[in-house]
Amino acid sequence: MNDSKPLVTSETRLRVRYAETDQMGVVYHANYFVWFEVGRVELMRELGVSYREMEQEGCMIAVVDVRCRYKSPARYDDELVVRTQLKNVRETLVHFSYELVRASDGTLLAEAETTHIVIDNEMKVSSLPEKYAGVFRRAAGKQ
Amino acid sequence: MNDSKPLVTSETRLRVRYAETDQMGVVYHANYFVWFEVGRVELMRELGVSYREMEQEGCMIAVVDVRCRYKSPARYDDELVVRTQLKNVRETLVHFSYELVRASDGTLLAEAETTHIVIDNEMKVSSLPEKYAGVFRRAAGKQ
Amino acid sequence: MNDSKPLVTSETRLRVRYAETDQMGVVYHANYFVWFEVGRVELMRELGVSYREMEQEGCMIAVVDVRCRYKSPARYDDELVVRTQLKNVRETLVHFSYELVRASDGTLLAEAETTHIVIDNEMKVSSLPEKYAGVFRRAAGKQ
Amino acid sequence: MNDSKPLVTSETRLRVRYAETDQMGVVYHANYFVWFEVGRVELMRELGVSYREMEQEGCMIAVVDVRCRYKSPARYDDELVVRTQLKNVRETLVHFSYELVRASDGTLLAEAETTHIVIDNEMKVSSLPEKYAGVFRRAAGKQ
Repeated sequence: MNDSKPLVTSETRLRVRYAETDQMGVVYHANYFVWFEVGRVELMRELGVSYREMEQEGCMIAVVDVRCRYKSPARYDDELVVRTQLKNVRETLVHFSYELVRASDGTLLAEAETTHIVIDNEMKVSSLPEKYAGVFRRAAGKQ
Repeated sequence: MNDSKPLVTSETRLRVRYAETDQMGVVYHANYFVWFEVGRVELMRELGVSYREMEQEGCMIAVVDVRCRYKSPARYDDELVVRTQLKNVRETLVHFSYELVRASDGTLLAEAETTHIVIDNEMKVSSLPEKYAGVFRRAAGKQ
Repeated sequence: MNDSKPLVTSETRLRVRYAETDQMGVVYHANYFVWFEVGRVELMRELGVSYREMEQEGCMIAVVDVRCRYKSPARYDDELVVRTQLKNVRETLVHFSYELVRASDGTLLAEAETTHIVIDNEMKVSSLPEKYAGVFRRAAGKQ
Repeated sequence: MNDSKPLVTSETRLRVRYAETDQMGVVYHANYFVWFEVGRVELMRELGVSYREMEQEGCMIAVVDVRCRYKSPARYDDELVVRTQLKNVRETLVHFSYELVRASDGTLLAEAETTHIVIDNEMKVSSLPEKYAGVFRRAAGKQ
């Protein structure tokens, strides 16, 4: 990876649902990954790519690696912002990063990365079609 | 429906997961339906029917109506018993009922019913194949 | 219940998340209740009531009965509208109804009702404080 | 950290629920963390520690860092084994690792680690009480 910087940062707002809390009174940790998925899909939409259509064409990006560092708890009814970036794109891999921020005061709640492998309808590794790869590389500042 | 009684009651044990609680300190209400699904699948397994294989053969039972009455809250780490019965089987409909009980003291936590329509791979309404329908009718005491 | 009509209908938009789908290719049925909860909270917010603050004051509305009829499946990335109404309010009970509609074409996807009991911090049944009860009764057209 | 090896490996069995799948036909990635939580709690139970009681005494272990590498997809109705180990215990931190394996053929589906901070009822960082710390250190092979 060279030292290029992602050129696009998508910001998605969402509000914490009661269902997402646990008895500790904060959001259950696994649910953050659902929000990152929302951020990922909205970043693609901003780039003109519908993940729904991509999947219908037989091109899926399956999660192969995730990492999250939790800094401060998200709480019920909080308004949150997911800031998503494309960090890197290779022939068969796509790499995203995320910052989760509380909207009211900008507090950083979590930082995360996810790595995805491109697969086809039979779950076989395949190359990202150039019409997506080009868009993704530009958003990642790789071109 | 005549006054026949279900002949088979399946009992499935499960333990409440932390993820299933909410900040009220009890299990979030929607999660009970996940347990009823577990009970339903285990009842079928006891009848010799693998729902996984049924689906692979292109026969699915999609939920069309659910009802649940919550009597007493399920709590984190509780051991629970789901008692599932087949209430009725018709050409394209299957009807289950459930009792959720706390294992330690037999307290009834919830009662529920779900109705399912039989569909094929294209999500079109279809008839339940006789190899399943016969087994289901007998379990429901309809034969 | 007399034949009064709810005066307030809240409309909340949401988009189906990938996490909410199952391998049938549609949204898993239990997840609809999470959306109804979102609708309920947004209806209260429109009435000037923050459910978060209500809970912090020790007044919770716990689900005691739910019912849902599924008409047509919600799918990944669909934009949905939850139309929520307060159907009835009594001293210790609150009753909501919901219609779930696909935004793009207005198709009715589901209809539901939930009944809630008012409880305090110790999970004891209690009366809905008049500051909420009055607002809720007016929204339900009961005054 | 010295080169000591965890002495205790807990093995917990669970079966994939329909609710845990997504429209890719495999388990949604965030749900693996729910299983790791189950593995963690069962490891503690084998060590004679009830996490429920620990929490009731005001001692919680909140997640601060998670990592998971997905090797092969878990599918509906698969029987899985979660192998959980305590990797390290410090005054305010507890570190677990996990292997997720398909029971039928031993295939490794995922590897993960989670780090937890010890907090009290007010969500302040606190020391792990010695009655737990000693048990945990021995299980981690640190004594």
